[in-house]
Amino acid sequence: MNEQLKAFMDEKLPLLHTHFKKVFEGTNYPASLAESMAYSVNAGGKRIRPLLVLATLEDLKAASEDAIQVASAIEFIHTYSLIHDDLPCMDDDDVRRGNPTNHVVYGEATAVLAADALQTLAFEELASLQHTEPKTILAILKAVSVASGAAGMVGGQVLDMQGERTQLTLAELEKVHVHKTGALLACCIEAGALLANTTEHKKEKLRIFSENIGLAFQIKDDILDITATTEQLGKTANKDLASDKSTYPALLGLDGAQKKLASHHGKAMEALKEIELEKSLLAHIADYIIDRKA
Amino acid sequence: MNEQLKAFMDEKLPLLHTHFKKVFEGTNYPASLAESMAYSVNAGGKRIRPLLVLATLEDLKAASEDAIQVASAIEFIHTYSLIHDDLPCMDDDDVRRGNPTNHVVYGEATAVLAADALQTLAFEELASLQHTEPKTILAILKAVSVASGAAGMVGGQVLDMQGERTQLTLAELEKVHVHKTGALLACCIEAGALLANTTEHKKEKLRIFSENIGLAFQIKDDILDITATTEQLGKTANKDLASDKSTYPALLGLDGAQKKLASHHGKAMEALKEIELEKSLLAHIADYIIDRKA
Repeated sequence: MNEQLKAFMDEKLPLLHTHFKKVFEGTNYPASLAESMAYSVNAGGKRIRPLLVLATLEDLKAASEDAIQVASAIEFIHTYSLIHDDLPCMDDDDVRRGNPTNHVVYGEATAVLAADALQTLAFEELASLQHTEPKTILAILKAVSVASGAAGMVGGQVLDMQGERTQLTLAELEKVHVHKTGALLACCIEAGALLANTTEHKKEKLRIFSENIGLAFQIKDDILDITATTEQLGKTANKDLASDKSTYPALLGLDGAQKKLASHHGKAMEALKEIELEKSLLAHIADYIIDRKA
Repeated sequence: MNEQLKAFMDEKLPLLHTHFKKVFEGTNYPASLAESMAYSVNAGGKRIRPLLVLATLEDLKAASEDAIQVASAIEFIHTYSLIHDDLPCMDDDDVRRGNPTNHVVYGEATAVLAADALQTLAFEELASLQHTEPKTILAILKAVSVASGAAGMVGGQVLDMQGERTQLTLAELEKVHVHKTGALLACCIEAGALLANTTEHKKEKLRIFSENIGLAFQIKDDILDITATTEQLGKTANKDLASDKSTYPALLGLDGAQKKLASHHGKAMEALKEIELEKSLLAHIADYIIDRKA
């Protein structure tokens, strides 16, 4: 991993984790609920979404005392979606990030509710920002809700479920991913740009960057499902293949998928170059997404 | 039902239902998801929560073009919670408001996601208000998130589940209900008061009113579970008794529960009297809660 990105992560991730701790400390939540919520929030993961929020601000040479809280809210949304995705009635996954999934540890009912409460908490966190103009907070709230709801992430999950029963075309597969993972990833960058109060021109280029790394991220996930081991992934490998799921390698072959990955990476970098961010943290994150082993 | 309240409902409920329709029209949600969301939103019910928002504004002689949207957002929160409550891993209910529950019609996975998206939609609706000061919108958003999350409704659901395994004391039972149903009911009145921009004194009296009708509402539910038929309720009657659940009648006897109901009703009315709202819509709603047959 790039040194500058590594230093940035070493600085920011502890702040994020401290904030998570602060959020759950001193609450009056029922103990089992708080425990179940914190279990999944603290289960690790790459923290790509929070890093995108924070990197966008940094790259735009802006700072916000609310940045960690916004980053954390979006991670709560992501976490709630993982808990529900893993449920027996959905993907029925027992292992996530190398650990037993939430419902395996706390039971299905508590898992459903912990995820529900994490979604609520995300919006509570956003509504409670103290250092941002109310109008900007509302713009962020709107962006997060659109990206994560029926027109975004949740809609993508429904499309994904429907797709499991048929062979998707490339356009259909892309639609699934633009909604299921792309919308929330793009929202991280949009939230960072809103906090930074940047220009419309930069926002537009960042949007193109977002779109492309969103798809790159998913293509890489599909490739890793085939090429990495369960141990490396911290989740069951070859699951897509076993379930006959539509994936980029299944549609394009492994080589074709690698090429498509490179093409999206190229477009993302081009967009960054147009706003002179080709050596930015966002650029390094894009490289990391391409090069990661898990 | 009181004539004034009936006229108010006849005026407002069609506006609410028209708004629901507008919200789902012209969205780009996957069709099955939109259908599942709309199914539960349109399944009827007493619409007590939206009515409380709108009645509070009316009683405070205030108006807001955003009132219906706020009322509708809170109804979406309530609806999402019912869908998840009915799931096999939770209360496992097949019938709700006289109709098959969401997961019976659309399957568990879609039901989980439709409810998730309804929660998101509630916050999107609030973040999109066009006629309210951003600061006030954020105060409403904060109130709704606190009332519906781990410190409120979802927390109450967890306490309720835990309570099913033991015999609760009266204080414990009250804690369940203050969280599970009371917090969101109170939030409706708070949201109305915030939209009306009323005085702290009136907010405080309305808070006392809310607390008491919240408990009255639940005690009445418990009483109806014993005294009403499945047909009247539109859901399985005698379910509490069959499951040996802690209820007010179980703890206090039917007579004792009736007395407690009357006592909370009295306290609620007293609070209204202190702000000269003893003949208001809120007072009529409190009467309706006490007198309802289902």
